[in-house]
Amino acid sequence: MTIDKTAAKAGLDALDTPCLLLDEAKLLANLDGLRGRLAALGVAFRPHLKTAKSIDVARRAMTSPQGPATVSTLKEAEYFAERGVTDLTYAVGIAPHKLDRVGAIRRRWGADLAVILDSVAQAQAVAAWCSATGERLPVMIEVDPDGHRSGVKPHDADLLLAIGRALGSDPDLRGVLLHAGDSYGLSDPNSLVRAAEAERAAALQAAGTLRGEGWPCPVVSVGSTPTARHARDLGGVTEVRAGVFMFGDLVQAGIGSCAVDDIAVSVLTTVIGHRPDRGWIITDAGWMAMSRDRGTAGQAVDQGYGLVCDRDGTPIPDLIVAQANQEHGVVALRPGSGGTLPDLPLGTRLRILPNHACATAAQYDRYHVIEKDGRLGAVWPRINGW
Amino acid sequence: MTIDKTAAKAGLDALDTPCLLLDEAKLLANLDGLRGRLAALGVAFRPHLKTAKSIDVARRAMTSPQGPATVSTLKEAEYFAERGVTDLTYAVGIAPHKLDRVGAIRRRWGADLAVILDSVAQAQAVAAWCSATGERLPVMIEVDPDGHRSGVKPHDADLLLAIGRALGSDPDLRGVLLHAGDSYGLSDPNSLVRAAEAERAAALQAAGTLRGEGWPCPVVSVGSTPTARHARDLGGVTEVRAGVFMFGDLVQAGIGSCAVDDIAVSVLTTVIGHRPDRGWIITDAGWMAMSRDRGTAGQAVDQGYGLVCDRDGTPIPDLIVAQANQEHGVVALRPGSGGTLPDLPLGTRLRILPNHACATAAQYDRYHVIEKDGRLGAVWPRINGW
Repeated sequence: MTIDKTAAKAGLDALDTPCLLLDEAKLLANLDGLRGRLAALGVAFRPHLKTAKSIDVARRAMTSPQGPATVSTLKEAEYFAERGVTDLTYAVGIAPHKLDRVGAIRRRWGADLAVILDSVAQAQAVAAWCSATGERLPVMIEVDPDGHRSGVKPHDADLLLAIGRALGSDPDLRGVLLHAGDSYGLSDPNSLVRAAEAERAAALQAAGTLRGEGWPCPVVSVGSTPTARHARDLGGVTEVRAGVFMFGDLVQAGIGSCAVDDIAVSVLTTVIGHRPDRGWIITDAGWMAMSRDRGTAGQAVDQGYGLVCDRDGTPIPDLIVAQANQEHGVVALRPGSGGTLPDLPLGTRLRILPNHACATAAQYDRYHVIEKDGRLGAVWPRINGW
Repeated sequence: MTIDKTAAKAGLDALDTPCLLLDEAKLLANLDGLRGRLAALGVAFRPHLKTAKSIDVARRAMTSPQGPATVSTLKEAEYFAERGVTDLTYAVGIAPHKLDRVGAIRRRWGADLAVILDSVAQAQAVAAWCSATGERLPVMIEVDPDGHRSGVKPHDADLLLAIGRALGSDPDLRGVLLHAGDSYGLSDPNSLVRAAEAERAAALQAAGTLRGEGWPCPVVSVGSTPTARHARDLGGVTEVRAGVFMFGDLVQAGIGSCAVDDIAVSVLTTVIGHRPDRGWIITDAGWMAMSRDRGTAGQAVDQGYGLVCDRDGTPIPDLIVAQANQEHGVVALRPGSGGTLPDLPLGTRLRILPNHACATAAQYDRYHVIEKDGRLGAVWPRINGW
């Protein structure tokens, strides 16, 4: 698609800074790319809405206005359920005190909101809640494919079956849910292919254990952006979850899950000063605008607090946000790059590509959308908090 | 003051997690402490409201309902001016396109909102705006005491005087403003005393240069939490700005600007899982709840993503948030501490002290206040964004 950069430029100059831009054409291309892959692999797509937290993005990502979709907070569940998204999985281990709020969301909006757990204690709490309320509740057992965080080990049949027994019959044991989070630490394509295959194998092992004891486990859910982008075979998996791929970011580019040119979100900023003695250009996008995320610090290319682009979104060679204070970004050449600091006068608008789209977008309450025709148009609100 | 922890406890269990707690007794003690110091040193206090972004906190911090106060964004200026705070300094170098918004705040709420700058280009832009609008605008010249960020070098008389000349007569040159930001990297009390004295000396040098050429410079403004807490002599300084001291945080404790027990903000969280094989306790306060700030990583004691306390706010020895995902905190013993992981069952409430109060508080839209009598009471809203 040809973008009319002149039109976007005129609109951008009317925005105060810092603010968050979303390139709709890149968003749609990212969505089409993953949906196409997953369709070819024969699995459903349950997009994770924790990155965007926006109904406008969600409607472009989901396969129907009702979902399916994944959320990371009950506030997201409420926000999306109120807007008609009723097929939801809350993919953070359930705390017993949150069950009443889960139940309220299910009743108020008729939402099929499922919870996840990985312990007998949680299963007992869910069973007790179902018994006390007379309601059924869909449950997924979280399984840990790679030691990253939470979840039952896939070979721990004793624990899987103990959880199943503790749930009893009132909760509706839907299946297993995995997140290959360690894939964020990889960058070699072959390793990512293997991580995806290991995630699938762990899912099938755990589901097989449960099925062998009579739980049908109709849902086998896996997902992380890197493994979703690198899976070659998803046989036996029924659905994939992924979120950050929609926007892309520098961490994903460092992993090899997207190209820098795929990144759909950026922070618009203004040059507010210069320190030629230090080789610094000062902008109004500090860490409050970028977030404190330094996810590229451990990657092959450290992007500081973000990669600097011109107002049209074209990266300026070797220019990064080298340091950040709350409302000041210190733009400088990447150490050792040997480049030349460009002349960017007071008032120059720049765009900064973020390390981590989830963290950067969370600093804002809206997206300023560069629409498909290149014009700055819609404002899409987003939510934050719990 | 004796706090009734039982009463607070009952209220805390009714809150969903994660959420942000503010201990009013500690807040007031922190405020009293710095105000007392500054009064004894004979200078005015212009609290920085960028940490709290709350009118309820501001009214407790300011010496009058009208101010003075400091803000880091024009959204803060609008929010506080609308609530009667009219003596304001916007302490981030002015971008020319923001002058219309500054002018609107001044007119709409009758606010004496001053801007800062450190270049001839900005001075020309301000002079042109004043000339075009027929309005006067108070201006401070930003001076750099320590090479931290922005500002004219205090001995650069040529630039100081060139800025003064470029401003001409329509802008109202009020004086000089400094921020000894490098003090955040110190921890030795003697070094902090010297940093405070260097900040004062730089301020007097720059103000002296301008006064020598006929600009009266009635205002000499300095400030950072560490230097404000360590200054022994503020002769010639007219006002001090500081913000994060109100709440305190683990970074300030590492510097020696507060004690861990002084920290007034904490994140209430719930245990949602366990990984005994890894020595992990999983909570629902991940980096979205704590922020991505890892400011203690470079200090003598690395606090991970935060220091873990019991529900009453008492630190649990050597227990920190060792890792964080978006909505998962991984609580573990500090590496090498040799301690014993406590038994914290599913559903246990904990409080996490943050590395950086400014960053953590920005993840929330409200404070749940533990009032002076120890009861959980008021909810104080706060703002974010630009």
